Amino acid sequence: MSSATIIAIPGIPDVRPGMALPDLLVRALHAAEIRPSVGDILVVAQKVVSKAEGSVVDLAEVTPRAEAHRLAGETGKDPRLVEVILRESTQVVRVHAEVLITEHRLGFICANAGVDHSNVGLGPDVVCLLPRDPDASARAISAALGAAFETPVAVIINDSHGRPHREGAVGTCIGAAGLEPLVSLVGRPDRYGYTLRTSVEAVADELAAAATLLQGQCDEGTPAVLIRGVPVKEGPGGAAQLLRDPARDLFR
Amino acid sequence: MSSATIIAIPGIPDVRPGMALPDLLVRALHAAEIRPSVGDILVVAQKVVSKAEGSVVDLAEVTPRAEAHRLAGETGKDPRLVEVILRESTQVVRVHAEVLITEHRLGFICANAGVDHSNVGLGPDVVCLLPRDPDASARAISAALGAAFETPVAVIINDSHGRPHREGAVGTCIGAAGLEPLVSLVGRPDRYGYTLRTSVEAVADELAAAATLLQGQCDEGTPAVLIRGVPVKEGPGGAAQLLRDPARDLFR
Repeated sequence: MSSATIIAIPGIPDVRPGMALPDLLVRALHAAEIRPSVGDILVVAQKVVSKAEGSVVDLAEVTPRAEAHRLAGETGKDPRLVEVILRESTQVVRVHAEVLITEHRLGFICANAGVDHSNVGLGPDVVCLLPRDPDASARAISAALGAAFETPVAVIINDSHGRPHREGAVGTCIGAAGLEPLVSLVGRPDRYGYTLRTSVEAVADELAAAATLLQGQCDEGTPAVLIRGVPVKEGPGGAAQLLRDPARDLFR
Repeated sequence: MSSATIIAIPGIPDVRPGMALPDLLVRALHAAEIRPSVGDILVVAQKVVSKAEGSVVDLAEVTPRAEAHRLAGETGKDPRLVEVILRESTQVVRVHAEVLITEHRLGFICANAGVDHSNVGLGPDVVCLLPRDPDASARAISAALGAAFETPVAVIINDSHGRPHREGAVGTCIGAAGLEPLVSLVGRPDRYGYTLRTSVEAVADELAAAATLLQGQCDEGTPAVLIRGVPVKEGPGGAAQLLRDPARDLFR
């Protein structure tokens, strides 16, 4: 009987700027006597990656430009927060009451450029940005795990993103190392011999969503989850593969 | 240490129109000696629900209307298939080379109204539609499990859907019974005492995505998966809760 397991890694301390997250993760796995094996995927919440890497901004030190003041008026947001969101973005995609949706400099479209207040804990005005380069963060964690446990371990950095058309956020892959984020079934026969023509599965996003089920987004303090037993394909990774070419995106 | 398990239910036979899927699932669980317990969620692939319920159409019996011929010309699709897609839809949302995105009569926006050829196996021209009422299908399965195992079991019907902005499909909830599809964290404090203001998690979609990791979309023949150990909230269910009010959908 095939099965997969999602294991919440216990014992990860409160992460503060400057801490070496890859080492913390290795130590937590050792302490919990969880030895990653081939095919395992470690999913790490964006928030601890950003905090460890110092991707935080104190709004007290931010001076909003005119555009930020204008968008703050339209959305009811703090103009300093809007300024930070604009700095993290390449373009504003939608503006509506309380909602600011932008294209993040990493290429994906999300609310508030991933900038938020929750679970930062560094002061009332300190907000968290996404990591500078989440694929690089994933590679660094993967390398540390590989060295410590002498086995390749794929790593995904996940964040909760809203979606067009649907209510609620879901865990989404924003950084990946060591696995193919997309698995194409095009050309493979189904169980009746019909050849699939368009099926491509975003396995990395499904792994990110599965991990979020145990990570929560509130006070759980479970930033890392090991997923075991899911068939994934080894590969270099890279979250950019999950981004639709703007020319082919019918919902821009 | 908290963990969750995703178990692929073995021994489900090739499903044909007219079969009683709830009974088949109960029998397969019995045969595999898997006894559902409180908090378990059974995720069932749309394709077997549709097939059991006879939600299939032989294109040989379909006469396309003029609009179907026109859209077939624009997309390169079989006009009879387009006709079936239009019958399943309340409006056409986007048309592009090879792509027809509609609002399904159940309210969600997806490619080809969920009509497809793969894993049907009832003849070269027979396509599968989504179930007439996937929430009712989920309730029927949940009731059968409840009666057989004397415990409430939540049920999700999942399908692989594409998304705006991102490549690849992910498992998505199209029917639900016995659990709250959305979990709001609004008003709850994070681990540092900051009160969350907007976080709502689409737990049902994350469960659907997690199940898809083991179900696959090709020749796996694993239409049902039991998820154990994920904290979900009991509730009546209903996939409509996951649909964004069109007036609030900035990407229509």
